[in-house]
Amino acid sequence: MSSEALSRIRRDLHAHPERGWCEFRTSSLVADRLDELGFEVRVGPDVVDPTTEARRPEPAELERAAQRAVGEGADPDLVERMAGGLTGVVGSLERGGGPTVGVRVDMDALPVEEAQDDHLPADEGFRSTHAGEMHACAHDGHTAIGLGLAERVASDEGFDGTLKLFFQPAEEGLGGGRAMAAGGELDDVDAFVAIHLGLGVPTGTVVSGVEFLTAGAMDVTFGGRSAHAAAAPEEGASALHAAASATCAIQAIPRHSEGITRVNVGRLDAGTASNVIPERAVMEVEVRGESDALYEYARERAIRAIEGAAHTHGVSAEIERRARAVSVPHRPAFAERVAEVVSVIETVEHVESHRLVSGSEDACFLQRRVRDHGGEATYVVVGADLAGPHHAGTFDFDERALSIGVDALARVAREIASEGVEG
Amino acid sequence: MSSEALSRIRRDLHAHPERGWCEFRTSSLVADRLDELGFEVRVGPDVVDPTTEARRPEPAELERAAQRAVGEGADPDLVERMAGGLTGVVGSLERGGGPTVGVRVDMDALPVEEAQDDHLPADEGFRSTHAGEMHACAHDGHTAIGLGLAERVASDEGFDGTLKLFFQPAEEGLGGGRAMAAGGELDDVDAFVAIHLGLGVPTGTVVSGVEFLTAGAMDVTFGGRSAHAAAAPEEGASALHAAASATCAIQAIPRHSEGITRVNVGRLDAGTASNVIPERAVMEVEVRGESDALYEYARERAIRAIEGAAHTHGVSAEIERRARAVSVPHRPAFAERVAEVVSVIETVEHVESHRLVSGSEDACFLQRRVRDHGGEATYVVVGADLAGPHHAGTFDFDERALSIGVDALARVAREIASEGVEG
Amino acid sequence: MSSEALSRIRRDLHAHPERGWCEFRTSSLVADRLDELGFEVRVGPDVVDPTTEARRPEPAELERAAQRAVGEGADPDLVERMAGGLTGVVGSLERGGGPTVGVRVDMDALPVEEAQDDHLPADEGFRSTHAGEMHACAHDGHTAIGLGLAERVASDEGFDGTLKLFFQPAEEGLGGGRAMAAGGELDDVDAFVAIHLGLGVPTGTVVSGVEFLTAGAMDVTFGGRSAHAAAAPEEGASALHAAASATCAIQAIPRHSEGITRVNVGRLDAGTASNVIPERAVMEVEVRGESDALYEYARERAIRAIEGAAHTHGVSAEIERRARAVSVPHRPAFAERVAEVVSVIETVEHVESHRLVSGSEDACFLQRRVRDHGGEATYVVVGADLAGPHHAGTFDFDERALSIGVDALARVAREIASEGVEG
Amino acid sequence: MSSEALSRIRRDLHAHPERGWCEFRTSSLVADRLDELGFEVRVGPDVVDPTTEARRPEPAELERAAQRAVGEGADPDLVERMAGGLTGVVGSLERGGGPTVGVRVDMDALPVEEAQDDHLPADEGFRSTHAGEMHACAHDGHTAIGLGLAERVASDEGFDGTLKLFFQPAEEGLGGGRAMAAGGELDDVDAFVAIHLGLGVPTGTVVSGVEFLTAGAMDVTFGGRSAHAAAAPEEGASALHAAASATCAIQAIPRHSEGITRVNVGRLDAGTASNVIPERAVMEVEVRGESDALYEYARERAIRAIEGAAHTHGVSAEIERRARAVSVPHRPAFAERVAEVVSVIETVEHVESHRLVSGSEDACFLQRRVRDHGGEATYVVVGADLAGPHHAGTFDFDERALSIGVDALARVAREIASEGVEG
Repeated sequence: MSSEALSRIRRDLHAHPERGWCEFRTSSLVADRLDELGFEVRVGPDVVDPTTEARRPEPAELERAAQRAVGEGADPDLVERMAGGLTGVVGSLERGGGPTVGVRVDMDALPVEEAQDDHLPADEGFRSTHAGEMHACAHDGHTAIGLGLAERVASDEGFDGTLKLFFQPAEEGLGGGRAMAAGGELDDVDAFVAIHLGLGVPTGTVVSGVEFLTAGAMDVTFGGRSAHAAAAPEEGASALHAAASATCAIQAIPRHSEGITRVNVGRLDAGTASNVIPERAVMEVEVRGESDALYEYARERAIRAIEGAAHTHGVSAEIERRARAVSVPHRPAFAERVAEVVSVIETVEHVESHRLVSGSEDACFLQRRVRDHGGEATYVVVGADLAGPHHAGTFDFDERALSIGVDALARVAREIASEGVEG
Repeated sequence: MSSEALSRIRRDLHAHPERGWCEFRTSSLVADRLDELGFEVRVGPDVVDPTTEARRPEPAELERAAQRAVGEGADPDLVERMAGGLTGVVGSLERGGGPTVGVRVDMDALPVEEAQDDHLPADEGFRSTHAGEMHACAHDGHTAIGLGLAERVASDEGFDGTLKLFFQPAEEGLGGGRAMAAGGELDDVDAFVAIHLGLGVPTGTVVSGVEFLTAGAMDVTFGGRSAHAAAAPEEGASALHAAASATCAIQAIPRHSEGITRVNVGRLDAGTASNVIPERAVMEVEVRGESDALYEYARERAIRAIEGAAHTHGVSAEIERRARAVSVPHRPAFAERVAEVVSVIETVEHVESHRLVSGSEDACFLQRRVRDHGGEATYVVVGADLAGPHHAGTFDFDERALSIGVDALARVAREIASEGVEG
Repeated sequence: MSSEALSRIRRDLHAHPERGWCEFRTSSLVADRLDELGFEVRVGPDVVDPTTEARRPEPAELERAAQRAVGEGADPDLVERMAGGLTGVVGSLERGGGPTVGVRVDMDALPVEEAQDDHLPADEGFRSTHAGEMHACAHDGHTAIGLGLAERVASDEGFDGTLKLFFQPAEEGLGGGRAMAAGGELDDVDAFVAIHLGLGVPTGTVVSGVEFLTAGAMDVTFGGRSAHAAAAPEEGASALHAAASATCAIQAIPRHSEGITRVNVGRLDAGTASNVIPERAVMEVEVRGESDALYEYARERAIRAIEGAAHTHGVSAEIERRARAVSVPHRPAFAERVAEVVSVIETVEHVESHRLVSGSEDACFLQRRVRDHGGEATYVVVGADLAGPHHAGTFDFDERALSIGVDALARVAREIASEGVEG
Repeated sequence: MSSEALSRIRRDLHAHPERGWCEFRTSSLVADRLDELGFEVRVGPDVVDPTTEARRPEPAELERAAQRAVGEGADPDLVERMAGGLTGVVGSLERGGGPTVGVRVDMDALPVEEAQDDHLPADEGFRSTHAGEMHACAHDGHTAIGLGLAERVASDEGFDGTLKLFFQPAEEGLGGGRAMAAGGELDDVDAFVAIHLGLGVPTGTVVSGVEFLTAGAMDVTFGGRSAHAAAAPEEGASALHAAASATCAIQAIPRHSEGITRVNVGRLDAGTASNVIPERAVMEVEVRGESDALYEYARERAIRAIEGAAHTHGVSAEIERRARAVSVPHRPAFAERVAEVVSVIETVEHVESHRLVSGSEDACFLQRRVRDHGGEATYVVVGADLAGPHHAGTFDFDERALSIGVDALARVAREIASEGVEG
């Protein structure tokens, strides 16, 4: 696939972002294309387990998303097969007796309003057409790379193995990785690579052996007592005030000398009107750590902050945990093998085989599943210069990275198919 | 009207609460009934000025409310005449040459979820059928009293003047009083009474000459910078954190030794997801004071708190003010006249002619308009025992107060019509 | 005593302020003068009970204060008799068979640095000579009035009763009132008056029947864990941070619709150096309420705020309560009697017989003791225009009030002695 | 010197800790011993520049410290020569024509209360005899190593160069390093080593090439308005409340993805009494960063937090900066040379030649001075197992490290003297 074609696919996806578990149009487009290329395609409950811990939208929202997808060109039959938000596609192409190489890309967008000014997607006409949703983490590019790789390998006479492509839904803290891992399709994969664009790595550099932070989110609900704010302030117990106090305390969790920790209060919705003492506040908190121990340190302090604020303000606090991502231990051999293979590509100027990235990834669940079944797995960042930070409305990436990504993965797939996992 | 009939009307309204500027069903029902009773009826732009400072819902929400009202029995023609949220009804009944007596009741509900357990409206089957909306401030009762008064005076042969009833929309901080005052229908009123049930006054007591707090709300929007919470926390500027800090500071504005002040952060909506640093926070703040000076004291400190938090967190803050209500100077003579008239009613055990209530009321704008045109005006609280505080989901009032309210107002109307405003 | 003489005494005291339980020089001067005038004088353990709840300075500080007093003219014998901080003087003058009239004035200064510029005491040369101590609440004036009254009554041939003067130490939250009440000297008093200058009442006005707020202080000690702030922030638990959080929460205790409440974090000392995580923080908190119930409301919320902050930050919190002052029920008859007597004085332009002042007073303990033994008691404010607020470095009062105070009390004493307590 | 003798010296110093600029007894003891060993000794203004930015105690406190030192055995003449807090000693021993080797140790203690229970110094009888002061950062050990090295080299016939020992005062954020660097005695040093015990490195390991964080402290003074907390809360402006708000915001400065940052509010003193609104608050804040840019990031945010809190609470804020320590660029060659030399020592099990330690050090100023004059300089950590964290009351170190330190430095000195700086 030409770099123009890759860019076209990516820009179409960019203009039609879909949040996690709502990737009906994206999945439909992917499944159709894989089918055309001769892949055996599975979707919906065949590839994602509907019973794992996940955060799916309300049925009404799923329904609206499904209808929008159909209105924007999705295949109604496929959308029907993914009913209830079971988006996700696995495509398999068997070519000779070599090992099975698995590659995972993710497809979901974020609840971010895309920038309008000084922003290439706006200038070039592919800005998000969905208000309040945006591909602000390059998953549109990942999906395009996945389709580019499918085409490349399908037409690569020298590929002598099985390629299995995993188009994963709901990576952004919503449980997609867990659900796809539990789907079982990874169990026969011998060598597995998950990818990401950007993450601070410049165009032309490729890094394998990438490690992430352990991360978890908490949905906190404070329950207070409403009252007329002027007539009886003493009869109320402000859930909003409690949440504000908890926010100040959580953001101030001390740094840890042994490594990276992160804290964020990412959402707070509380109260209804200026003259009513708010009786309910809902808060989303996230903590991360370079190790499970550092994550636990931050999590335990966040819980104490929530409990302390609740006590102070005389409100209740319910904490629902969502384990988002765990660390996967670094295994140098396979990471170095991948780096070495990639290093010969012309457009790759620099390779590395180990790096800690201070984000988190639910590809961890897929990597672990592969390893549990005897396979090898690594995580690769394909460098891409960025116009704005990940998750910001100004985010955009250098599209030259799309070809580099396809080149790198195609090379890795062919090499492993020919030479075996251990080389 | 029997107390059973009053209760029936009130309970029907209670089951179908409508927020400010959305009182399509309520206004329709009122207009129809006044028309039946022989009143000359005016609605919509004839009685509320659409150009005054107000806080109307989005068009889509108004449209949904209008459709719901029609679905629940409102007259589609009347709803059409109130298009754009110009709810509000004025009914006028001329009977002889005496003075024009104006009475104002309000009709809007609150964004409060009604209680389910140990709550009479739930037990007796008239709990709100609109999720998240509730008559938690007795305006259902006020409207019922207004209709009861209409019927009573219409059949009172001894009434020798003009009765003008003002069914006001959007009292709860939304600008309805200002709009109805500007509508011009008050300019020929000689004596004016606005009423409220409850407010800490027990069933059997009636208080005239009630004064309220000066009050104002602010809509605050903090604008920060979003970023990936783990990958680049330093690139973000959390609007949520700024709003939380401002909340803590606003709630801590010092008391004032010269009188009552009130502060409340009543709503805060910020951020989108746990792993994104929130770039936008919207906050509703309210301050009140026993005098304009005390109100200004609190308001000025709240603004400083917002500015200080914005500076600390490197975010912008836009403050949009909504002046809610002002104090109306106490004029003892008319208040005492009303108290005296009311004191002879059998079910009234106790009367007072002056009290400060620590809430606010936009009837102030109507009272002031009447006085500016040479009329007299006072505010009357009809006592009612309460099951829970005003604005809380457990709020309910003693329905015996409905008849007392009708009796009191009918007596006042007849007396003034016969004896003149000054008695 | 001429108004010049009164002013001279007051200015001498003003220049030599002594904090609670350290009024060695003041007490010595008072005792000597009363003795000269023929009063029977008692000091130290004879008039203050050393066993009641009180807050005395450390022995070393008492010793320094005692030495300073001697250096500034106090009688060493008297200072010795007040060893351990048992300052306080009672003088008794028996003249005929009428009732015993008790009058109480207080003598202690505050830990406030006196203003230097645009400040009359500085301009006229009687600014405090004790760094960090100041008569910023007019107790210097009270003591001067007490001595003026002693002289006036001593030379008043028409006085036919017993005058008992109570010069009380340590009024400013330190337990002096409680100790003097327990001392027993009040038990034979038939009519009792305690006084204060200023408090928002202008020169020329005198108010009897003054009520105060119930008040209590808490000494809070947070205990955390110190650690190197850079090398191991996670090993520390900042007592300072916990105290800061508690401060923000205490200052934000909601107002109460039923009356006045007050909250203040008046002192916070925490930590030792910028690079050590603070393991200890000491905080002084005060809450007040218009009634015992309102006081309890505020106190209970303050305790919750302290506990919540301790939980959040993983530190311990010890709370030691000091009950400062309670409300004394208003008894109109005696208050009106006093107001009536005072109203005939030429320099008194206006009298009132009931007012709520939003401060607190430990004269409450003396008033209660008198009433418990069958006497009458009231509290009188002698109005005085002020240059700055009470407890501020800019505080100063109009010295014309000194003569008014002496006139008023002398008149009350003579009247009650002649006509009896009930008139 | 035997390890028993080293331990004896260290324990004597431990029992008599002296804070920065007050090391009169320590300096006196050091100067006397160096003199005995044949060193040329310089003290006071000859070795520390009194004009550099520094934080010296008040004269009265210096005087008390000097008297205490004399009372505990210091030589009065030496104490006199260090008047005004110019503690600090340089000893020089010339032996042949080789290079000049400089070694720096620091001598000051911390304002920390030493633990009593389960604490070896308490159990073995050398707990601090100075209440509130403690050697909680091993400077007692550093001084002992300096004296042990002096004795070892003095008796080492094979040493063929000049040894210059720098006993530095006031390392703990007080400006001692800057003052000693400016003193000029370093300008002829060819090779320089500064040392520290512990810092997370275990006994038996020695690390050269140690880098530290850039660090700076701020002394913040908030100026508000005092008022009577009950009578006129609106007239006050609480400096304490402002400082508490600033604390919460400073502790919550976001982490930076590019490296280590640190923040700490280490001291807060505010207010005077529970019933006075505090008009003054003094706060010590410290920020650090792995690079100057990260330090500036944290510093700029801390300043914004202080300014924001001041604005919110209507108080003034003065910020006085103290630059504590800067990073010194890593120069591998000399660090590796030192590591290599040390590696042959029997009791050293493990050496490293580069490490980042997340504390700060004002040895940076000495290292830089040496390099500016053409010399080489490195920082060495002599590993020591610890009983509690640095700067905590439970701190203690494994005394076996004392001999290791002397061995390592003696070996480095001899080797450089013989073979030259570059080996």
